[in-house]
Amino acid sequence: MASFPGRHTRHLLGLEGMTPDQIEPLLDLAESYALLNRSRKVPRDVLRGRTLINLFFEDSTRTRTSFELAGKRLGADVINMSVAQSSVNKGETLLDTAATLNAMRTDLLVVRHSQSGAPALLARKVEASVVNAGDGMHEHPTQALLDALTIRRHHGTLGGLKVAICGDVAHSRVARSNIHLLTTMGSSVRLVGPPTLVPGNLGQLGVDIHHSMEDGLRDVDVVMMLRLQRERMSSGLIPSAREYFRFFGLDRRRLDLAHKNALVMHPGPMNRGVEIDSSVADSDQSVIQEQVEMGVAVRMAVLDRLTRSRQTP
Amino acid sequence: MASFPGRHTRHLLGLEGMTPDQIEPLLDLAESYALLNRSRKVPRDVLRGRTLINLFFEDSTRTRTSFELAGKRLGADVINMSVAQSSVNKGETLLDTAATLNAMRTDLLVVRHSQSGAPALLARKVEASVVNAGDGMHEHPTQALLDALTIRRHHGTLGGLKVAICGDVAHSRVARSNIHLLTTMGSSVRLVGPPTLVPGNLGQLGVDIHHSMEDGLRDVDVVMMLRLQRERMSSGLIPSAREYFRFFGLDRRRLDLAHKNALVMHPGPMNRGVEIDSSVADSDQSVIQEQVEMGVAVRMAVLDRLTRSRQTP
Amino acid sequence: MASFPGRHTRHLLGLEGMTPDQIEPLLDLAESYALLNRSRKVPRDVLRGRTLINLFFEDSTRTRTSFELAGKRLGADVINMSVAQSSVNKGETLLDTAATLNAMRTDLLVVRHSQSGAPALLARKVEASVVNAGDGMHEHPTQALLDALTIRRHHGTLGGLKVAICGDVAHSRVARSNIHLLTTMGSSVRLVGPPTLVPGNLGQLGVDIHHSMEDGLRDVDVVMMLRLQRERMSSGLIPSAREYFRFFGLDRRRLDLAHKNALVMHPGPMNRGVEIDSSVADSDQSVIQEQVEMGVAVRMAVLDRLTRSRQTP
Repeated sequence: MASFPGRHTRHLLGLEGMTPDQIEPLLDLAESYALLNRSRKVPRDVLRGRTLINLFFEDSTRTRTSFELAGKRLGADVINMSVAQSSVNKGETLLDTAATLNAMRTDLLVVRHSQSGAPALLARKVEASVVNAGDGMHEHPTQALLDALTIRRHHGTLGGLKVAICGDVAHSRVARSNIHLLTTMGSSVRLVGPPTLVPGNLGQLGVDIHHSMEDGLRDVDVVMMLRLQRERMSSGLIPSAREYFRFFGLDRRRLDLAHKNALVMHPGPMNRGVEIDSSVADSDQSVIQEQVEMGVAVRMAVLDRLTRSRQTP
Repeated sequence: MASFPGRHTRHLLGLEGMTPDQIEPLLDLAESYALLNRSRKVPRDVLRGRTLINLFFEDSTRTRTSFELAGKRLGADVINMSVAQSSVNKGETLLDTAATLNAMRTDLLVVRHSQSGAPALLARKVEASVVNAGDGMHEHPTQALLDALTIRRHHGTLGGLKVAICGDVAHSRVARSNIHLLTTMGSSVRLVGPPTLVPGNLGQLGVDIHHSMEDGLRDVDVVMMLRLQRERMSSGLIPSAREYFRFFGLDRRRLDLAHKNALVMHPGPMNRGVEIDSSVADSDQSVIQEQVEMGVAVRMAVLDRLTRSRQTP
Repeated sequence: MASFPGRHTRHLLGLEGMTPDQIEPLLDLAESYALLNRSRKVPRDVLRGRTLINLFFEDSTRTRTSFELAGKRLGADVINMSVAQSSVNKGETLLDTAATLNAMRTDLLVVRHSQSGAPALLARKVEASVVNAGDGMHEHPTQALLDALTIRRHHGTLGGLKVAICGDVAHSRVARSNIHLLTTMGSSVRLVGPPTLVPGNLGQLGVDIHHSMEDGLRDVDVVMMLRLQRERMSSGLIPSAREYFRFFGLDRRRLDLAHKNALVMHPGPMNRGVEIDSSVADSDQSVIQEQVEMGVAVRMAVLDRLTRSRQTP
């Protein structure tokens, strides 16, 4: 499943198995794109004449927009295909969709799908480079990369940090990609949440498990909150939003248990008052907006790298 | 609330408070873009490298397309975000959406929203220039600007004209923006419609009120019809489409009460046979298609001006 | 109804009435675009500064994407308008929509509509060149052109071939356009299907009618399968998908009745196991993916030709 950005791979399907010398240059490239975005000086020929298709089987304006912007700024022809409009509704199989996009001479295929492994399946059938934009409960690699870049900008390194990932870890591809990346880069990761959302078997991933925020946040350098899907309540995994916030919401008092320079992160969109309190979401320690900014930069770096790696085989 | 295009402002939120020396140069610029559109000679570098996001919380293909075309013709990267797809559905607040778009380094944010004041609220939170594409019952400034440009092309001036705005004025942001602009430019404005849709207190805006088309249209230079929202019937403000047309629809006989060169205008889409009869909508006096054409030109001028004003602070 | 690409026409509304010396150069141009697509060397100035609007009253991601890609690769500003969002929902007439798009200075208008003749109706009201992307049960000319190009690439010619078109011919605009094109180019066409879907009066089109696959496929050079609309079952025209496949599905055994080099074609998306078996859809004889690839190339050729023909009047 490891896949990027080694010389012999052309997809970004997940971060599991990637090495620090693959990750660091990618973050460096993204950092340079962040500066170019600020100065509106992005070179428009990086992806000129290339076709990027955003193939989203799950709705996500935020991630889709981020990839769309990344592609357009680099000069690609960008096409959005959402499942609601697509032939999938007419009963077409995923592999037939892949064959169709392939025949259209797609260069970059960004895929979000509710089933783990769908992007990898597509990757085997297309000549395009496939970027996993989130698949089931598997991975969301560009999210973890943008998180890493944001952390590195503030702490100067990813090595030796203590990072708490809090909330619905069990169902989170964001958490999974972050665990792979952060442990690979030498950080120690703690998962924090109720046993229904942070079961003990996640310890196999080389992380510590905490079922209390008070324990889990102590002395950490980064507090990464996850979005609580509202369907977790209807399915009985948590009692109510109010109860959840009382025990596992991030507020000022709990944040003060962390290192005084600890970063507050959230992949968005936030449920204010459910998993996070506005007093910390909007505080000086919050880097939530910077995560969004780095998201565009990271995606530009990924699209650039995947394209260049194919031009010089 | 006044906002454009003075040296110290960078948004177009409304026309209230704008002065003739702000409006005239903008119409001149739009006029030049109208010519460039016809000859397909628009310079593509005006907005090159700039990001325009169309953020539409209300559906409007016509206005969205007009802004999309304006941005693309000037070379911008244009992204459409409609609320049906956006994180707002996931409970994200308007201000969090603003923060996200800001972090993505958006330069121009075109906003339509059902609540009056929403674009102004966003404008306080983003570095982008915000263009109000219609907010609640407040303003729709580019519509009034395109109406003004269309009138000026035919009558040579906006000063000293008599303009009748007819129909559902009470609920119309189009009417409100037109009233501000036209009275500022020296035209006299009459509002015409039944008391439920043209209540007497609108007289505070410096306009005359008429409850009969026969009175209101006499000797005017411009007849501006408004679209009748069908929900006005279900809510009991008017009895039926047929009754409405009988008393307040524009037909040949009523139009003949106006000046013989009077223009017939409508912001579209028209309800033929409800507020307007085809015999006048398609007559020589109708400038309804020209309004659409000027719409693209006016939006190009606005996007251009807002962008340039920021480059030379 | 004949319309393209003679010197005196500027639309592509259908293939009926076109002559071989109109069709061949278009296929040649498309062939050259197919090569440019593969090498990512499409000149981006062919449609620079031109506006292409995809106006789809029926959903079709596949065809819309193909036109969108074709336009973008040639440098056009491409706008997608789907009916679900458009003013048509607000009661606007088709002709008012035409007038609006015209006023926006649209150069190329790609139209799909459920009613036969709608693109032709629009063509009379706009200055843009109109391309019919499928109208009711009338025509789908670019589909037939891409089919023809695909056949020509394999058989070297369109003259003297035997082509079987199988399935729901009665309701198929794809079949209708193919019949016009193939008979014009000198191929002989057989229609194959149950009498409910291939009624005898289709013989008026200069084709042979067969109600058994075993008869119809014998010695043909091309087997063109049509997509079976599932609503044909609910409306009682066919008994069930399983029954349909048993009598009219294409499988290995039936394909072996055709010429040994016979091509297998399908306009997509396929209903595997209904009208076509995977063993033939994925066989060496299948050119279904190549059809998709030629689709983009053919649309580029059409957009190019229509635009150039207007520049040198």
